[in-house]
Amino acid sequence: MASQGKKLINDPNAVVTEFIEGLVETYPGLQYLDGFPEVKVVLRADYASAMLDKVAVISGGGSGHEPAHAGFVGEGMLSAAICGEVFTSPQVDAILSGIRAVTGPMGCLLVVTNYTGDRLNFGLAAEQARSEGYKVETVIVGDDCALPPLRGTAGRRGLAGTILVNKIAGAAAATGLSLDEVAAEAKRASEMVGTMGVALSVCTLPGQVTSDRLGPGKMELGLGIHGEPGAAVADLQPVEVVVSHVLQEILSPDTNYVPITPGNRVVLLINGLGATPAMELMIAAGKAVPQLQLEHGLAVDRVYTGSFMTSLDMAGFSISIMKADEAILQYLDAATKAPHWPVGVNGNRPPAKIPVPLPLSHSAKSYESLSRPQQLSEQGCLLEVAIEAAVIAIIDLRDNLNEWDGTVGDGDCGSTMCRGATAILEDMKKHYPLNDAAETVGEIGSSIRRVMGGTSGILYTIFCKAACAHLKANTQSVVTSKQWAEALEVSIAAVSKYGGASAGFRTMLDALIPASAVLQERLNAGDDPCTAFLLSSEAAVAGAESTRHMQAQAGRSSYISSDILATVPDPGAMAAASWYRAAAMAIKNKYQVHE
Amino acid sequence: MASQGKKLINDPNAVVTEFIEGLVETYPGLQYLDGFPEVKVVLRADYASAMLDKVAVISGGGSGHEPAHAGFVGEGMLSAAICGEVFTSPQVDAILSGIRAVTGPMGCLLVVTNYTGDRLNFGLAAEQARSEGYKVETVIVGDDCALPPLRGTAGRRGLAGTILVNKIAGAAAATGLSLDEVAAEAKRASEMVGTMGVALSVCTLPGQVTSDRLGPGKMELGLGIHGEPGAAVADLQPVEVVVSHVLQEILSPDTNYVPITPGNRVVLLINGLGATPAMELMIAAGKAVPQLQLEHGLAVDRVYTGSFMTSLDMAGFSISIMKADEAILQYLDAATKAPHWPVGVNGNRPPAKIPVPLPLSHSAKSYESLSRPQQLSEQGCLLEVAIEAAVIAIIDLRDNLNEWDGTVGDGDCGSTMCRGATAILEDMKKHYPLNDAAETVGEIGSSIRRVMGGTSGILYTIFCKAACAHLKANTQSVVTSKQWAEALEVSIAAVSKYGGASAGFRTMLDALIPASAVLQERLNAGDDPCTAFLLSSEAAVAGAESTRHMQAQAGRSSYISSDILATVPDPGAMAAASWYRAAAMAIKNKYQVHE
Repeated sequence: MASQGKKLINDPNAVVTEFIEGLVETYPGLQYLDGFPEVKVVLRADYASAMLDKVAVISGGGSGHEPAHAGFVGEGMLSAAICGEVFTSPQVDAILSGIRAVTGPMGCLLVVTNYTGDRLNFGLAAEQARSEGYKVETVIVGDDCALPPLRGTAGRRGLAGTILVNKIAGAAAATGLSLDEVAAEAKRASEMVGTMGVALSVCTLPGQVTSDRLGPGKMELGLGIHGEPGAAVADLQPVEVVVSHVLQEILSPDTNYVPITPGNRVVLLINGLGATPAMELMIAAGKAVPQLQLEHGLAVDRVYTGSFMTSLDMAGFSISIMKADEAILQYLDAATKAPHWPVGVNGNRPPAKIPVPLPLSHSAKSYESLSRPQQLSEQGCLLEVAIEAAVIAIIDLRDNLNEWDGTVGDGDCGSTMCRGATAILEDMKKHYPLNDAAETVGEIGSSIRRVMGGTSGILYTIFCKAACAHLKANTQSVVTSKQWAEALEVSIAAVSKYGGASAGFRTMLDALIPASAVLQERLNAGDDPCTAFLLSSEAAVAGAESTRHMQAQAGRSSYISSDILATVPDPGAMAAASWYRAAAMAIKNKYQVHE
Repeated sequence: MASQGKKLINDPNAVVTEFIEGLVETYPGLQYLDGFPEVKVVLRADYASAMLDKVAVISGGGSGHEPAHAGFVGEGMLSAAICGEVFTSPQVDAILSGIRAVTGPMGCLLVVTNYTGDRLNFGLAAEQARSEGYKVETVIVGDDCALPPLRGTAGRRGLAGTILVNKIAGAAAATGLSLDEVAAEAKRASEMVGTMGVALSVCTLPGQVTSDRLGPGKMELGLGIHGEPGAAVADLQPVEVVVSHVLQEILSPDTNYVPITPGNRVVLLINGLGATPAMELMIAAGKAVPQLQLEHGLAVDRVYTGSFMTSLDMAGFSISIMKADEAILQYLDAATKAPHWPVGVNGNRPPAKIPVPLPLSHSAKSYESLSRPQQLSEQGCLLEVAIEAAVIAIIDLRDNLNEWDGTVGDGDCGSTMCRGATAILEDMKKHYPLNDAAETVGEIGSSIRRVMGGTSGILYTIFCKAACAHLKANTQSVVTSKQWAEALEVSIAAVSKYGGASAGFRTMLDALIPASAVLQERLNAGDDPCTAFLLSSEAAVAGAESTRHMQAQAGRSSYISSDILATVPDPGAMAAASWYRAAAMAIKNKYQVHE
């Protein structure tokens, strides 16, 4: 079952140094000490100016927890991060190098996670640095709430709460506090935060095989961040239930790990463990906040959701809760240049949701205009005649369209088009404002959209809405033939843009594009509108027929061989030519009656 | 093989709305339209003031790509994001609602990814909004470079390059440009960017089974972001090779997808696909930059590394390269409140690495002082006698320590301690500056660190370094007995803090803590130093013997039953008592000789 873990890396033994190289390529505000592979220290590129008058804040530990800690180096947070090998505490010499690099007269605070290796190595480095004359203090963070109290000195592990402690320490240092004061703020923060994790999968170390410890449908609760087994394995539950359990464990009065009681203010940190999508983290955040408010009686002042302290590619998250007061919030909110500290988390919290706006056109006037006029204008009459002829032509062509489409597609082109045509016929009688050409064309689009599914339905709706918008913006009550021609051109452009097809793609455009070209050409040449429309409609029919010899470029037909395609015209093009031709003929007949 | 995919979600059909609820809990600058489940629109909470005098910029599409696009809503980037169901284009009504909500007199730009569904739905919404009187433009982004050119209108998919286009459009709008100008900037940007992805695993849709399409050791190149198969499957390669291939495909002169030629300036976007740890993304970034510079002759002006446009829980990344010029860099660098736009990416780029600093104490003076003095002071003589006696006591006790440790640990306590003792004896003759008590104690720590591994080695080094730092800071050339007592107390505190043990934990501290207490007590009572030291050493021996009856709280012994523990004393405590006692006896003998 177990197989070599898949990772996008090079040498498994060089992942940390190569991570740092990529990090400084990404963030020009970061540098590293030129001591690879032993010394892996990331520091502020502006450390020289910072060390003069501020306490330096250093954190670190084994790697594999990225972006922690190197991604939190920057003004207002860490002065330097000391990176060990994956899940291995950094060596004393590396820590010492980091201390020497960023510590000025104000001294240096080391924020250390409560693992034996980190405690010993950072501790020795601190003592060594002191013996060299540096002022150094250390604060050890153990925020884990998963294990019962007093399990020897292994005690509580340092988890994602460390990130909050680092931010508070960095912000305190940035205000110019003394080393003792910065250490006191960090220590106070470390005593206010509790964390517990849940995982769906175990992480895989670079170059190692993937563990199958957690089978399908199982999750692990109260895990560490080094792949060690969690406190319990359970069946996977909805995340709402998981969040509820984790919050209860952290806030349990039995363990009394965090001094949080109902009525307190807190900040919440939802921390992805490496392979958890942002979607899932946000869902957890969305469930945790109301639970903290309603079930635990806490005010949630800030929510930090993201991947801060990971465990390589582990899927899952940890939740940290820190008791908040004005001082802590100020430190958390303080500006920082640390690239991975989240932005946009503070600020006034307006209502989360606002009403869906009504359309502008839902004014009384528009509603009134959307009804069939008692008396049709001349243009209204022509419009009615043309529309009626066009839709009847489609209804008549239904079986042919279905047959052609059966050869090259799914055989429903006629049925679909007919559905739209029928709706237009019905809606026109009820409410098309025929004396308003722009609105009428828009309403044709609405009728089509109401009943016609699929790409063709949307494209015809776009066709009508584009014409409507153009006519509305560019015409008065009577639309000239030239304006109709322009509207046609705009509509074709919209269909081409959003549908992605152009001339020769074996689509409806192969009827409409030549029609539009001829219409403009004849009008420009001085032909009377009726003749120009008729000639244009002949071009539409010719264009539709010519699709027999075209290779399909769009839609389902693009998968059909050219031999088969040549036996039929494109049904979409034929439908377009058909309604266009019928409209032109109807206008001509109407004019002939008048003559 | 295939099993239900594991996700930390609730109802698979509600993941998008629950994501949005968590998002607005996290970021008070974001709101959503109260139209769930149909209308899923995230917008700037300050949209009302923004819409008055700026072009609105809207993007969106199917969900499952978080943080895209909702995480990029904020001043300077998107005015609103329209979220569809997972991998499903949003409905026209939702898009229209978003347009209506944020569009003011300056109009609105829709940035649309080149998928048929998005093109049609956003296109129809745009035309509908226009027909309602809104000024709307659309720009379609198709930055995919994985497929050969001209594959019908399906064309090039919109991938992570869309994020850069959105940033540029949002920044252009923020400067107050007109709709046409903003659209032109966005279009220009969309034509300058190319993207290609690589994946190690296929994403799992909420509530669906996990695909095993990509087996062990395989990767997919040129994939989309909706779980569709990539252009090719290949054996997994080192990421350096993968990056090289992807860069070549994007920059290929054959496809000529991006107008980038040697000598150009570019920006690089390394985009995680959802389940890719930050470490791997940074490693890819670290490899891509020098390849772009050296193999393609390009100047890399900015590097964006993170998860921007994901594909649920897919493991892998995409690389986007955009041709850069001053205008594009200004737009990319412009401030934004969009929470997921990366920070710290611009600014002056100093040298990536700086030399490892030398220790402060490596001055000429320190080096000189680190040699055995020609003539020992009275204190130097006593120190030499005490150290010699202490280490010989350890060497003599070697077999006993090993035997006791064999019962409760791994049996090497004596060997380890003896190694340290021997090194001290050798180094003292060579270079201990015995007339300088502080430095000598520090050098004992260095000798121990050089040869003694394990926790005991580090703890004894910490013990010595802490004493050294205290003596250096608080004493002159001659150290008083009271100062020695203080140094002992400080050293014990350091061992306790970093080692995590305290009295009664069955460790070396159970000898040293009573010794320290008695030493201070006797000195305070007015005893002469020699007597006080002797009495103190008797307390050390008694304390060490008492460890027989202690339950181990730290280290390996904590797993041993109390029956077995009771048969032997703690070897660490016995060793400490032994060297302490020997030193005290040696001092006493030295004084007696003098008397």
